[in-house]
Amino acid sequence: MEKILEGLIQKNRHLIQKGHVANYIPALSKVNPNYIGLAIADVDGHIYCAGDYNIKFSIQSISKIISLMLALIDNGEDYVFSKVGYEPTDEPFNTLYKLDLNSCNPANPMINSGAIITTSLIRGNKDEKFDRIIEFIRLITENPNIGYNEEVYLSEKATGHKNRAIAYLMKAKGYLDGEVEDILDVYFKQCSVEVTAVDVAKIGLFIARRCPLNLDSKINNERLASIVTAIITTCGMYDFSGEYAAKVGIPSKSGVGGGILGTIPNKLGIGVFSPALDRFGNSIAGYGIMKDLARELNLNIF
Amino acid sequence: MEKILEGLIQKNRHLIQKGHVANYIPALSKVNPNYIGLAIADVDGHIYCAGDYNIKFSIQSISKIISLMLALIDNGEDYVFSKVGYEPTDEPFNTLYKLDLNSCNPANPMINSGAIITTSLIRGNKDEKFDRIIEFIRLITENPNIGYNEEVYLSEKATGHKNRAIAYLMKAKGYLDGEVEDILDVYFKQCSVEVTAVDVAKIGLFIARRCPLNLDSKINNERLASIVTAIITTCGMYDFSGEYAAKVGIPSKSGVGGGILGTIPNKLGIGVFSPALDRFGNSIAGYGIMKDLARELNLNIF
Amino acid sequence: MEKILEGLIQKNRHLIQKGHVANYIPALSKVNPNYIGLAIADVDGHIYCAGDYNIKFSIQSISKIISLMLALIDNGEDYVFSKVGYEPTDEPFNTLYKLDLNSCNPANPMINSGAIITTSLIRGNKDEKFDRIIEFIRLITENPNIGYNEEVYLSEKATGHKNRAIAYLMKAKGYLDGEVEDILDVYFKQCSVEVTAVDVAKIGLFIARRCPLNLDSKINNERLASIVTAIITTCGMYDFSGEYAAKVGIPSKSGVGGGILGTIPNKLGIGVFSPALDRFGNSIAGYGIMKDLARELNLNIF
Amino acid sequence: MEKILEGLIQKNRHLIQKGHVANYIPALSKVNPNYIGLAIADVDGHIYCAGDYNIKFSIQSISKIISLMLALIDNGEDYVFSKVGYEPTDEPFNTLYKLDLNSCNPANPMINSGAIITTSLIRGNKDEKFDRIIEFIRLITENPNIGYNEEVYLSEKATGHKNRAIAYLMKAKGYLDGEVEDILDVYFKQCSVEVTAVDVAKIGLFIARRCPLNLDSKINNERLASIVTAIITTCGMYDFSGEYAAKVGIPSKSGVGGGILGTIPNKLGIGVFSPALDRFGNSIAGYGIMKDLARELNLNIF
Repeated sequence: MEKILEGLIQKNRHLIQKGHVANYIPALSKVNPNYIGLAIADVDGHIYCAGDYNIKFSIQSISKIISLMLALIDNGEDYVFSKVGYEPTDEPFNTLYKLDLNSCNPANPMINSGAIITTSLIRGNKDEKFDRIIEFIRLITENPNIGYNEEVYLSEKATGHKNRAIAYLMKAKGYLDGEVEDILDVYFKQCSVEVTAVDVAKIGLFIARRCPLNLDSKINNERLASIVTAIITTCGMYDFSGEYAAKVGIPSKSGVGGGILGTIPNKLGIGVFSPALDRFGNSIAGYGIMKDLARELNLNIF
Repeated sequence: MEKILEGLIQKNRHLIQKGHVANYIPALSKVNPNYIGLAIADVDGHIYCAGDYNIKFSIQSISKIISLMLALIDNGEDYVFSKVGYEPTDEPFNTLYKLDLNSCNPANPMINSGAIITTSLIRGNKDEKFDRIIEFIRLITENPNIGYNEEVYLSEKATGHKNRAIAYLMKAKGYLDGEVEDILDVYFKQCSVEVTAVDVAKIGLFIARRCPLNLDSKINNERLASIVTAIITTCGMYDFSGEYAAKVGIPSKSGVGGGILGTIPNKLGIGVFSPALDRFGNSIAGYGIMKDLARELNLNIF
Repeated sequence: MEKILEGLIQKNRHLIQKGHVANYIPALSKVNPNYIGLAIADVDGHIYCAGDYNIKFSIQSISKIISLMLALIDNGEDYVFSKVGYEPTDEPFNTLYKLDLNSCNPANPMINSGAIITTSLIRGNKDEKFDRIIEFIRLITENPNIGYNEEVYLSEKATGHKNRAIAYLMKAKGYLDGEVEDILDVYFKQCSVEVTAVDVAKIGLFIARRCPLNLDSKINNERLASIVTAIITTCGMYDFSGEYAAKVGIPSKSGVGGGILGTIPNKLGIGVFSPALDRFGNSIAGYGIMKDLARELNLNIF
Repeated sequence: MEKILEGLIQKNRHLIQKGHVANYIPALSKVNPNYIGLAIADVDGHIYCAGDYNIKFSIQSISKIISLMLALIDNGEDYVFSKVGYEPTDEPFNTLYKLDLNSCNPANPMINSGAIITTSLIRGNKDEKFDRIIEFIRLITENPNIGYNEEVYLSEKATGHKNRAIAYLMKAKGYLDGEVEDILDVYFKQCSVEVTAVDVAKIGLFIARRCPLNLDSKINNERLASIVTAIITTCGMYDFSGEYAAKVGIPSKSGVGGGILGTIPNKLGIGVFSPALDRFGNSIAGYGIMKDLARELNLNIF
């Protein structure tokens, strides 16, 4: 298996040339574009790795899965989805205009506006929210060393004007409860959590194993896993989600840090890392690897 | 099995009260709202039916699957998706504004604009296009008696001003090749094809069985089935597709005639019919039945 | 005076280089871009001309003034403005998306959608409508030889897909009464009416003199003139109207045939013709001439 | 003359019933809705008043004229209009979506986004900016007692989330230079400046007299007056500007505090105050008074 993974890395490495490391904050633009790593964690407890599987990178939008799960655990499905939609959108992740135009909640929890909502729904004040996020990630990755990158966090906070505009607009429209700057602070911090491809594969495995945790929760574990899997399938890869579903067929969520999480129900979790991005904000070599992986291991669910 | 299906019909029949038969054309508004029927066709050749499974209704948007498949067979994946996108949208099926605003092709082949494009891509003049559509439906349903409803067709043609606006806009933008009124004529006719729940289940089974046809085609059968399954999962239930995926998890396509097609890869096809619709244009009792069916038969793919 | 006009032509002739003749229909793209003419008609009965003042060109959007006036004469102010708004828009003249998005009538009668509405409101069947338009133009220009250009008309009709989309969308939304293709036919024909700069100056003078006609009318003449003057001030120069008001300050209406009409209440009418257009669709040398004219003759109303 | 004004107040007082005092901040909603006052200041130095002409109210959007004038004085026409457009829009004053959608500067300086830009362009830090604003208002109203209402200012600051969203979005897009919260602070403060109908009439007169000040300025006075007059004509009454131009024809600017400023070049300035608003945010009795005034005194410029 590891040979297969190694082969996929070699085959897709050349794609890095065609992509660009995220440059909207200085901290991200300094990342070495040549990293490429892959990990698979299956339900039998095996972990297969290749390439730069143990390099840390910022989780970015993959954290939207985490805040969605915690929001659901704390509030239940009905309440969460009275505040954010289930619907995929053909708009980019940082879209804003429909919030102004349509007077409706954010389309889904995988775009920034929706993720700011789910973060706001996590129990506790701003410190408690973030503690719960980091503890939850540590728990499901079985990695107690996970922390966040202070430089990335401060960069996001200093330059996140679009997210600030989104949050204030939602405040003005009555969609967002709580103190705007506090919620943004948690949001910027959760995006700067550092993980490896192995950590990401384990988050994917956690969902694939149907969230087997004994938590104080307002949603049952099977349902939690199923919702997350459905939502990343329709919305997980930004405005490329439809094409990705048709060409890869692995429920996945990407982040502009270069990570992609995959999850196949009852089978396995996948973590890919390669920081050069395509124009949608998805890891360009990561997409290539996922496409090949789906074919080689027959993982396409469609 | 048929007992289960019968039970689901009884359990969901009350939902009919909350819906409304499509009224945008007189021919559709005359349909008896109380019909409710269900059929499942599995890969072992069994067909299970219940309720009004043999009542004919107009296929409407379920025909978008047919024109997508024929467009792919005639032109291959790359060409078709250079003319229409893969992306789900949070806009209604008859949305128009983004075509004007964004200067981009229709988002996907499951909204009207996208389906008008796929119809235009089917080989032949207007009569040949429609002949190929009807023959293809007869072939995969194994029902040589399938035809179209002249009254519905003429009604659609006389009142389809929004579709006409969409088509002329795409013509003006250079997205649509061919004679606009000819393409619309085929489009209106394909929407008025009459099918039963059994026919729909068999179309679903055809996709589930990975399109086992020896056709002169520019796409391989496995790929054809996979694309269609992925696209209806993300876009098949109008702007309710995301919520449907999260709550039902059966790749499905609905039509305002009251039909819903479901398909589970390598397993079975489903046809539901009940003409009272919810506000998204989906069969209201049909949605209830699908939700229960997913749970009872463990069909949720997520 | 004619020396001044001659001077303005010489001064602005060089701007022609920076513009382009309208090319959306072949008939318009064949026009000699080097024409440049100017006429002023004052309330004392003098007409001053310079340059190519007697070259015929197609009236295009300047006809929107004519159909607005006839719609007002036939229906009165309240009825007309229950079907079309008074509001300027920052969208281009052939904008469509808001009609879909906002479910409201066209913003104003100087964009295509609004002008299609006013044309539909003119009394009579399609032949009668056009007869009234041409007779009205002949009357107020005192030029019985005015006709339309068959080639331009047929070109517009053959290629006017965007206008067709606009009209069918308004039909679908219930904003447009009557047979769509008939209304479009009148609209295309009115755009292809041929006039000279002198004719245009006389239309401007007619408005400046407060519409001194003894017509069977549902609006009084003073009010008719005042409304038209106000509306062209806020909406007459496409999505450049605001800048034009701030820089020129002459109530004006342009057409993609290269004409610009100006009107100063109780003083004079202006006709300019030069077919090379800027990116807004306004005559590029015409704009320069108007700007200079406002300064030289102290015509800026602001 | 004062008898005429008194008559107009009596005639239009009943309209107050149909309007509502602005309620988006508590400080505004407490205003007595029954106030109605009117002042005219002409170029010969006469001031005519009637009703509640000496009641103070918050200037609100009428301050957009002030910040536009100071921005022009400090930067000249070309620079200011490279940062904000001249174009009227059919969107409400607090529109946001096009800034996201179109990637272009605010449409004009009379909507909130555009006014935030002009405020940012006034020379100085946040205290200096506001000092210049208040001193300029005192100068042109010849009223050294003008100040701002602390309660209104703090209310606006605490609840102005939509304006905050607009400003952060412009910051994210690179349209807005400087510290966002500082600029917003000046903006909120300028909106809470307190004036009377007489003060407003004098601002109108200042423009009518073509800004006769010996200021250190990058724009000549005549041009400054002409631009402001043109822009309020096309954009001054929110998304009712077009209808107002057609029905009243007095270049005017309103504020949600209930004030309306009018200006007739080389003739006079008008100040109206009545705090009950129509659905566009314009004083409902004020609009009635302006309409009658235009007719009685023959002030319609169109």
